[in-house]
Amino acid sequence: MKRVRLIVSYDGTNYCGWQVQDNETTVAGVINEHLSELLGEEIKIAGASRTDSGVHALGNVAVFDTETQIPAEKICFALNQRLPEDIRIQESDEVSADWHPRFQDSKKTYEYTIINRRFPDPTKRLYAHWEYGELDAETMKEAAEYLVGEHDFASFCSAGGQQETTIREIYSINVEKEGDIITIRVQGNGFLYNMVRIIAGTLIEIGKGTYEASKMKEILDAKDRNEAGPTARANGLKLVKIEYENA
Amino acid sequence: MKRVRLIVSYDGTNYCGWQVQDNETTVAGVINEHLSELLGEEIKIAGASRTDSGVHALGNVAVFDTETQIPAEKICFALNQRLPEDIRIQESDEVSADWHPRFQDSKKTYEYTIINRRFPDPTKRLYAHWEYGELDAETMKEAAEYLVGEHDFASFCSAGGQQETTIREIYSINVEKEGDIITIRVQGNGFLYNMVRIIAGTLIEIGKGTYEASKMKEILDAKDRNEAGPTARANGLKLVKIEYENA
Repeated sequence: MKRVRLIVSYDGTNYCGWQVQDNETTVAGVINEHLSELLGEEIKIAGASRTDSGVHALGNVAVFDTETQIPAEKICFALNQRLPEDIRIQESDEVSADWHPRFQDSKKTYEYTIINRRFPDPTKRLYAHWEYGELDAETMKEAAEYLVGEHDFASFCSAGGQQETTIREIYSINVEKEGDIITIRVQGNGFLYNMVRIIAGTLIEIGKGTYEASKMKEILDAKDRNEAGPTARANGLKLVKIEYENA
Repeated sequence: MKRVRLIVSYDGTNYCGWQVQDNETTVAGVINEHLSELLGEEIKIAGASRTDSGVHALGNVAVFDTETQIPAEKICFALNQRLPEDIRIQESDEVSADWHPRFQDSKKTYEYTIINRRFPDPTKRLYAHWEYGELDAETMKEAAEYLVGEHDFASFCSAGGQQETTIREIYSINVEKEGDIITIRVQGNGFLYNMVRIIAGTLIEIGKGTYEASKMKEILDAKDRNEAGPTARANGLKLVKIEYENA
């Protein structure tokens, strides 16, 4: 028996999110199906992040246990041959039997992408939120700074999460504008349900001028979901990577 | 009667190219259908560039004649309401009755995008050519320089083009690497059939080390399609913009 870790990338457009659900096509469900066929045993992977429907990933992390003789490093090649084009395993390796992608400290990096132009660019429609009104990226950047550090992020959490506490630490948030693309890149030790999308939705309102930058601090202090902006669309969100202290 | 110009963007993935063909879904065909419905008269647009199946555009240019009373500037809004999500009109305006997007001098800008990493990124699979072997962007840049200027580009032209001469002028080619993305951006007064894709395919071979940079000059001088590299995949190509002296 060995435990194998996968670095998993996917285009979330055609999936009902990561987590296995009856009668729905999910990323974990499709990987389980192809891994089980490949290895000839029933495989159930456990993922680090249960991304929502339509959310993308470059580096989600998952593990599974197997009796296979195939070296762990080769599994990514064999599995990619079977998977649909919108899921690709970037890496596979063996980890210790008690290594789990969720129950340990990690640094997660998410990106939220906004395309800011008069009409959408069709080639970006599945991977960026389109906003036609001109956004002020400098004010968004200023507002984002209030979120850095350890805070109670209750204002940025949708109902339905299962966490015991709404305190999280954000290590950094960068807002960058290049041409008509604005990228919000956020790193933290963990994120509440819809947290990055609510932060993005609030920053968009600030970028439009609905609120001033300092409103972000008021929202944070209120600890009330109703104070923050809307949850921005799933298609703009991408889980970029997860880094572990005990790699 | 007035002549209206459209700036047309599309995701070419699901189209058999620009040009109307019987029994095939094409970009011009779909626009003709929706424009005709919108304006209540039969419309046939004429495009600047007949992009191939799978090729994308941010700024292709087209014109049509119409009897409509709708101001030309409003047509983009009304048409975008009807078009599928993978086609968007960026702008519409009235031009003089003899203005044509093909039969006059213009500067065209194309981009060819390569993603260079061990396994594909699923969110880029429709908009970038994936290459797993490490490419040397500096050598590609050096090789590209040989193509700048007025030359006979017969080595970079697939059979099936309808041009009278294979002489064209390339104003600039830039090869830029950012992370795992290499972008080849080329500007010229016109391009032969598959010319940008053959240039990209040749630069990829040079980037892999199959040829040295100076081989590009030999290929150009040979005026023989068999000397150049393969035609790179359509999905990496995007027509970015077309600029006219007589706008």
